[in-house]
Amino acid sequence: MATRIGIGLLGLGTVGAGVATILTSPEGRHPLIAELDLVRVAVRDLNRSRPVAIPQEKLTTDPEAVVDDPEVQVVVEVMGGIEPARTLIMRAIAAGKSVVTANKAVIARHGEEIASAAAAAGVYVLIEAAVGGGIPIIEPLKQSLGSNRINRVSGIINGTTNYILSRMADEGADYFAVLKDAQDLGYAEADPAADVEGHDAADKIAILSGLAFGGPIDRDAIPTSGISNLQSKDVDYATQLGYGVKLLAIAERIESSSDASPALPLAVRVQPTLVPKEHPLAGVHGVNNAILVEGDPVGRVMFYGPGAGSGPTASAVVADILNIAGIRQLNAAPGGLDPLLAASSWRACRLVQGGEIRQRNYVRFNTDDAPGVIGRIGSCFGDQQVSIQSIVQFDASDEGAEIVVITHEVSSGAMQKALSAITALPEVRLLASHLGCL
Amino acid sequence: MATRIGIGLLGLGTVGAGVATILTSPEGRHPLIAELDLVRVAVRDLNRSRPVAIPQEKLTTDPEAVVDDPEVQVVVEVMGGIEPARTLIMRAIAAGKSVVTANKAVIARHGEEIASAAAAAGVYVLIEAAVGGGIPIIEPLKQSLGSNRINRVSGIINGTTNYILSRMADEGADYFAVLKDAQDLGYAEADPAADVEGHDAADKIAILSGLAFGGPIDRDAIPTSGISNLQSKDVDYATQLGYGVKLLAIAERIESSSDASPALPLAVRVQPTLVPKEHPLAGVHGVNNAILVEGDPVGRVMFYGPGAGSGPTASAVVADILNIAGIRQLNAAPGGLDPLLAASSWRACRLVQGGEIRQRNYVRFNTDDAPGVIGRIGSCFGDQQVSIQSIVQFDASDEGAEIVVITHEVSSGAMQKALSAITALPEVRLLASHLGCL
Repeated sequence: MATRIGIGLLGLGTVGAGVATILTSPEGRHPLIAELDLVRVAVRDLNRSRPVAIPQEKLTTDPEAVVDDPEVQVVVEVMGGIEPARTLIMRAIAAGKSVVTANKAVIARHGEEIASAAAAAGVYVLIEAAVGGGIPIIEPLKQSLGSNRINRVSGIINGTTNYILSRMADEGADYFAVLKDAQDLGYAEADPAADVEGHDAADKIAILSGLAFGGPIDRDAIPTSGISNLQSKDVDYATQLGYGVKLLAIAERIESSSDASPALPLAVRVQPTLVPKEHPLAGVHGVNNAILVEGDPVGRVMFYGPGAGSGPTASAVVADILNIAGIRQLNAAPGGLDPLLAASSWRACRLVQGGEIRQRNYVRFNTDDAPGVIGRIGSCFGDQQVSIQSIVQFDASDEGAEIVVITHEVSSGAMQKALSAITALPEVRLLASHLGCL
Repeated sequence: MATRIGIGLLGLGTVGAGVATILTSPEGRHPLIAELDLVRVAVRDLNRSRPVAIPQEKLTTDPEAVVDDPEVQVVVEVMGGIEPARTLIMRAIAAGKSVVTANKAVIARHGEEIASAAAAAGVYVLIEAAVGGGIPIIEPLKQSLGSNRINRVSGIINGTTNYILSRMADEGADYFAVLKDAQDLGYAEADPAADVEGHDAADKIAILSGLAFGGPIDRDAIPTSGISNLQSKDVDYATQLGYGVKLLAIAERIESSSDASPALPLAVRVQPTLVPKEHPLAGVHGVNNAILVEGDPVGRVMFYGPGAGSGPTASAVVADILNIAGIRQLNAAPGGLDPLLAASSWRACRLVQGGEIRQRNYVRFNTDDAPGVIGRIGSCFGDQQVSIQSIVQFDASDEGAEIVVITHEVSSGAMQKALSAITALPEVRLLASHLGCL
């Protein structure tokens, strides 16, 4: 009854080598692994030495030859980057082949086009490895939480920034010093922008939102701020107030009054955020990731683990291959798809305007060390109905005072108006920081 | 293309009412929910008032009538208890119907018999709700982690005991006082034995081990100790030493020298265990559950959330129904099963003898407050090659001294020999506690 399945691998870098290692050492793993044949592998350089032994005749520098190989039934794309990955994925789908990819950039930007083509061709495009490395989060969203109305998905989904923030908190270290170290250790790229500016996390929350809320998200409309401007002073003050600072990606359904669109209104953003010490996300340190899903009736569930790396990411890639292999054992008529595994969109979603997003806020002002300034700041917030949880003055000196305010939940619109009024006060020199707060 | 699916529900208690609530309010959930028809419901008392409105003509007091109803394609068993649940599950399988159950007691004890019958009949028996309430853990083990060699599954899988332990730690409260409170709040049963003696956790770790390691486990051979003898003093000392105390269920593959059996040797047990404050399981408080899975190459992933309750458990039950409904959309030939979802055994496992289990230990002795006693205790451990991480004396007074020892990892056999020698020392009055330690 078992049907052998031919696998074509596009890319033999860190993740590709991890995938090949699993496929060529099936002992002790699920027996279905032994049914998978690694048929053809596209590489950039045929002669490079590699951590995993692949017979030379299986290697090619022509990725189209892998996609087109008649013995390849499942195409595994682990090259990264937008092109030629996108074109190769579309070519595989057109040839009636299912695809497994770890490519968050392609899926966040071209996911709808790819999903439509896959549905029309009756094939799967599975993406467990695109978010959260080895953490099972895509399959649980698709196959284990469908009975819920999801209210919020939030999490730490970039390991590089979490490593940097963990060390800044533990050592009181400066952002640039820790970044340099992270680069030396291989945790951060030479050009760290995709990680530290939050773009990688924005790609991933776009993908998670689409699955959790059932409709595609406009990736480019996600407000994104990273950690490159974060000052160690704010990490220190947050710690003193009982919080950790994490780069969170958040997607939540909200009440929106702005129009009568039938699309589900969502507030989605990526930003440095204070997390109370007792919150489950506060205990996520180093390069680990964690995703918190809140829904009705499940409540709050969290998925935690290594967010990147060869082994964890390969674990997720091969899980997807196994899911396709499992379904193929059913010998179903061609073209039919399991709607949970295929996860096509089932409603329209829209991102609300920034001013409609409601959240708690952490702000720090540099002010003159003058009597009455806290009162005047408090009044400006009060004028906009922004209610305050705490105002604390740190570090009064000749160089002035530092005043830190944590608000209750307010709309970003009201918050902006209050901040404009405050920065116009003569005693207030500067709005030095503005972060989110759970 | 959509095929409507008839659901028969056995039981309309806490979980059953949660399931009915989801099935009768599909808006905002996965669209496949709208394809599920709640056809027939078996209840104990036709006239009891219920939190969810079910037309009277769908109710019956005869569970066999639900199983036998030709319009019922999937039988959902949420009655609990061994019988008649087991017989009804077998009857549904014999009639060619897939089954969803939340019944950990039946699956832990009769899982093999049920799985064999289901495989022969070409139907699924899905059990996501049997472990960890609303936390997706069964499906991830089956469908997302199959590429791994699993080394260890451990976790907090009983919410009642975790609630009691959390309050003992937070308040320095006594076990019996907190138990009474938990009973008043409905977190503990009037007869709390299944929870506090660890039997419920043993059922669940038997199920998790079977899935993680691919072979059935002898439930009755799992060494189990609960929290009913745990003293608040030990929780207090553990806190001072940097640990929390949790009731952990642990299953791990070990090297065994004892025989040449080809079966995979596993060490499985349930016991109160010290967990270092920085360990991911240490932050799991109250009625929450968390399961940590360690494998190669994924590393360490953790699944966290509400371990019980109507809504969370119903979320898991309906997830299983959706998985069956998704597969049915493929119109595959009858009798074929997706091997991942069906999760049949693929190798033999065996539990090692208690003496072979290796772990770190926490022990507390009552001794005379005499010079030299710490040295003599240390020597007894040394004689058995038990290496010690710390020996600390607490509370020396007229009533003697309390000496707490934390060991490095040693075999239980060597530990027992050392403890026999120590309790034979004239200055040692009592081995007051012996717990595990991560």
